[in-house]
Amino acid sequence: MEILKQRRTIRKYQQKDISPDLLNDLLDSAFRASTVGNMQVYSVIVTRDADRKAKLAPAHFNQPMVQTAPVVLTFCIDLRRFSKWCEQRKAIPGYNNLEWFVTGSVDALLAAQTFCVAAEEKGLGICYLGTTTYNPQMIIEALELPELVFPITTVTVGWPAEEPAQVDRLPLEAIIHEETYHDYTPDDIDRLYAYKESLSENKQFILENNKETLAQVFTDVRYKKEDNEVMSENLWNVMKKQGF
Amino acid sequence: MEILKQRRTIRKYQQKDISPDLLNDLLDSAFRASTVGNMQVYSVIVTRDADRKAKLAPAHFNQPMVQTAPVVLTFCIDLRRFSKWCEQRKAIPGYNNLEWFVTGSVDALLAAQTFCVAAEEKGLGICYLGTTTYNPQMIIEALELPELVFPITTVTVGWPAEEPAQVDRLPLEAIIHEETYHDYTPDDIDRLYAYKESLSENKQFILENNKETLAQVFTDVRYKKEDNEVMSENLWNVMKKQGF
Repeated sequence: MEILKQRRTIRKYQQKDISPDLLNDLLDSAFRASTVGNMQVYSVIVTRDADRKAKLAPAHFNQPMVQTAPVVLTFCIDLRRFSKWCEQRKAIPGYNNLEWFVTGSVDALLAAQTFCVAAEEKGLGICYLGTTTYNPQMIIEALELPELVFPITTVTVGWPAEEPAQVDRLPLEAIIHEETYHDYTPDDIDRLYAYKESLSENKQFILENNKETLAQVFTDVRYKKEDNEVMSENLWNVMKKQGF
Repeated sequence: MEILKQRRTIRKYQQKDISPDLLNDLLDSAFRASTVGNMQVYSVIVTRDADRKAKLAPAHFNQPMVQTAPVVLTFCIDLRRFSKWCEQRKAIPGYNNLEWFVTGSVDALLAAQTFCVAAEEKGLGICYLGTTTYNPQMIIEALELPELVFPITTVTVGWPAEEPAQVDRLPLEAIIHEETYHDYTPDDIDRLYAYKESLSENKQFILENNKETLAQVFTDVRYKKEDNEVMSENLWNVMKKQGF
């Protein structure tokens, strides 16, 4: 449990490969994670080839980890394999819908996180790319994902070449609710975000972005309402296009 | 890594509590999981009270674990806390949309799975309830979840009172694709599902359900097309109702 507590995201990697045996061993552990009805409605695309990474990079806004990590893993919702099995066994599948998009994403994400825990235990460093659902169509094209397959998250993995400081987290009481949801009063919000707002790196962040509050850095710079709305519409259209 | 490989889902629990200190320690580890922009857009509702469990049970089709586990955890997408912070800091949030429903579910599921790994390392047993997204409105009411909060998965947890055999998984080559997605030929499907179909418990499953193939048990009995479609429409409506 100490490894889980001490972990940090790693964005810089040594120029050193991950052996296929080690990678497969880690994925083997990952696939023991819980899965709906033991159906395993996910697939993992392994990218090692430099040209393929170069194709993927723009989908992730050219974050350098895509091209500098020895291995990039794209975890996908996959209802295709299961549906093909059904069709080949005189059974009529019905998994091309929102419920199974969500169920597939649960399956894929539990496997992804188990992979990350196993990888970190072996001394590897990982970074999740939340950009996966921003430009899904570019990833679908780069990895040639057919209908009923959808990229839900990406993990870059390699041997660490940095030792970053651990970042803050909200206090436990911000996240945990006993029995029912306890809504936040203005005082609660002030108290729960006080530590985050007190950090010098966050004050620096406000200055650099020429904003008045840390929250404005999120809403006006990093994750803007208008971008979120365009991406939501785009995500829905690509979900439909992929058959969900 | 051996613990990850040897794990199995536990559905029967000893009548023995989990101390609040242990539970909080496990959740503390869980909240070190990766989270988008360090925003932690999730909440966890802890259910210990028998009456509350009884209210939750029907939403999970009365699976006995809900009432027999000492602790039930409902992991929720939560854009409410973050949005309240924005509003209180002169920032205009824009997280009431599909993109952030999906991003919140990634966040919540990485935390959920890290919790499960930490719990199993301490000798606890866990079971995921995929039913969470089947009847979200019942859960929303039982746990009093307000707008911008949505239950994405549920974990029952307790000290194991059973030692079940480990269930099968598909071979690695069924899940892993090198560089691009390699679509499955009919021969691939036959080969990849052969072991699963050869298991005596699965043959028994076919007989008990009076079906011709194992796939038909899934499509005709367990996860039916018409149910999936009704649940998808319902899920979409509840997502809208919760403000996404």
